[in-house]
Amino acid sequence: MERTKMKKINIGIIGYGNLGKGVEKSILNTEDLNLIGIFTRRNPKDINSKNKAYHIDELINFKDKIDVCILCGGSATDLIKQGPDITKYFNTVDSYDTHANIPEYFNIMDKASKEGNNVSMISTGWDPGLFSLNRLLFESILPKGETYTFWGKGVSQGHSDAVRRINGVKKAIQYTIPNEKNIEKIKNGEKLNLSTREKHFRECFVVTEDNADLKQIENDIKTMKNYFDEYDTSVHFIDEEEFNKNHTGMPHGGQVIRLGNSSDNINQVMSFSLNLESNPEFTASVSVACARAVYKLSQNRDYGCKTIFDIPLKYLSSNSDADIVKRLL
Amino acid sequence: MERTKMKKINIGIIGYGNLGKGVEKSILNTEDLNLIGIFTRRNPKDINSKNKAYHIDELINFKDKIDVCILCGGSATDLIKQGPDITKYFNTVDSYDTHANIPEYFNIMDKASKEGNNVSMISTGWDPGLFSLNRLLFESILPKGETYTFWGKGVSQGHSDAVRRINGVKKAIQYTIPNEKNIEKIKNGEKLNLSTREKHFRECFVVTEDNADLKQIENDIKTMKNYFDEYDTSVHFIDEEEFNKNHTGMPHGGQVIRLGNSSDNINQVMSFSLNLESNPEFTASVSVACARAVYKLSQNRDYGCKTIFDIPLKYLSSNSDADIVKRLL
Repeated sequence: MERTKMKKINIGIIGYGNLGKGVEKSILNTEDLNLIGIFTRRNPKDINSKNKAYHIDELINFKDKIDVCILCGGSATDLIKQGPDITKYFNTVDSYDTHANIPEYFNIMDKASKEGNNVSMISTGWDPGLFSLNRLLFESILPKGETYTFWGKGVSQGHSDAVRRINGVKKAIQYTIPNEKNIEKIKNGEKLNLSTREKHFRECFVVTEDNADLKQIENDIKTMKNYFDEYDTSVHFIDEEEFNKNHTGMPHGGQVIRLGNSSDNINQVMSFSLNLESNPEFTASVSVACARAVYKLSQNRDYGCKTIFDIPLKYLSSNSDADIVKRLL
Repeated sequence: MERTKMKKINIGIIGYGNLGKGVEKSILNTEDLNLIGIFTRRNPKDINSKNKAYHIDELINFKDKIDVCILCGGSATDLIKQGPDITKYFNTVDSYDTHANIPEYFNIMDKASKEGNNVSMISTGWDPGLFSLNRLLFESILPKGETYTFWGKGVSQGHSDAVRRINGVKKAIQYTIPNEKNIEKIKNGEKLNLSTREKHFRECFVVTEDNADLKQIENDIKTMKNYFDEYDTSVHFIDEEEFNKNHTGMPHGGQVIRLGNSSDNINQVMSFSLNLESNPEFTASVSVACARAVYKLSQNRDYGCKTIFDIPLKYLSSNSDADIVKRLL
């Protein structure tokens, strides 16, 4: 496919939180994608963007104008409903990330997209998404071995929210920190069987209300079930100025490592890592590249639900087959 | 595709050097591949293997018994001739690695494999191969940015050979060593425009003949055009015992790094790295996983020449779609 012959792929953004804003920025980095509009449940007049915003109820009127809708809602409440509703009428990309429910979501989306002769690509971010892809690649090449996933250093929204719900806490952020010493050992060929505590640390920065009981807050955090009790956690109390200056970004990252053996005693280590200054902007960049793949699948009439495992990676590229073979292989 | 329903994929190994031996070992790590035999230009009686060995001239008699031939010859002299000859009759996988000639080799293989309704997958190792795949993935997701490839620490056969040709040299090995300081800078978000000298160092371990002129040998190495003159090279003279003890392995590795921006001033770093105790065994493991993909493409009647860019990565796996979605996504 030569770029000169290619029509632009028309995109709709569904939802305008951090992810939707990231998709809007990411489309600016491409030459082959064209943003048709932002669709929101809010009053479109409240959307602060240079691009056109519409109420979500108007989306259906864009059936012939949009090639792919990028769904930017959350997994828990938005996608499970919005996903099947929209993919009946449009090709879709999402970053559904509730790992345990993916098989069920896959089936729902597969049925709905096939009803409308559409393609839905789900769980396209980095975990699930790129990390999943590498877990598959690594174990396929080195069937004998162990795969390790580490996250961070980065902000966990769920853990930050949990800390913010504690009495006396005004603002809080939680960083997940991988245990670099154990990562180093694995990369040097040591097979480790790591407990939760040995894989990651948790670090909290907390701004409290006046007269809050710091000892109590620290104890409440460190003993919180499912969130902190299985980890070594450090708690730092800081003032609001420092918080606003240093702790409002959304960095994240992590790595997938396979320590495998191609034969007895021969260690082979493969790893994939991300170091992201903005988690939502990166997730958005992955979704945007996947929108290109969805468009191509749709052109091939290869309908239904797809994951990153199902597509030739050249589908993510805007460049021709001949160009990528010559330049990148 | 359920594993229980899957017939085993029958493999022929063509050539029995380091790569062929690696493929033989790698097949032992799989449950879905079956080695039919080793095919050699030598006298098959001289092949020291538990598996059956045949003269290459007998290969044609195995047309109905072999699903995929893994070609384990060298790029320069073997593959360019053997590749098209064999893929007229068999599906093939190879690790053709002369980057500059890949587009030409692709066309030759595409024509030959289509003649016989076969699939040929070329350049399947790690560079070209997995590194290429990551270069494509990275630039597709972060179109604004720079990709860096570093190799090593590892043995360069070409440079080792070059040193061995110097007068007075009995044994020699050359390690390519990446400049870790510059890798660290890039990973920390610094955009670097690196000269050849700033990317890699070269380190040689040399055993000399008696009465050799060490000063002259060191000078010959360091000033050797195209091989060493553009690098900072260190030369260590060691005795044969130390050489045999510490320098007969074939470790290699390297990394592909993308420093990209999703929006102004937001740095996003992606990287893929390999740390290999045996370069030929790892390359072999990639070829073996790709043989699985070639078999599936052939079942789909998707004939012709393919690269790692062209295949859904699930084709590399022996596991079912449902299993990999549930377990790895």
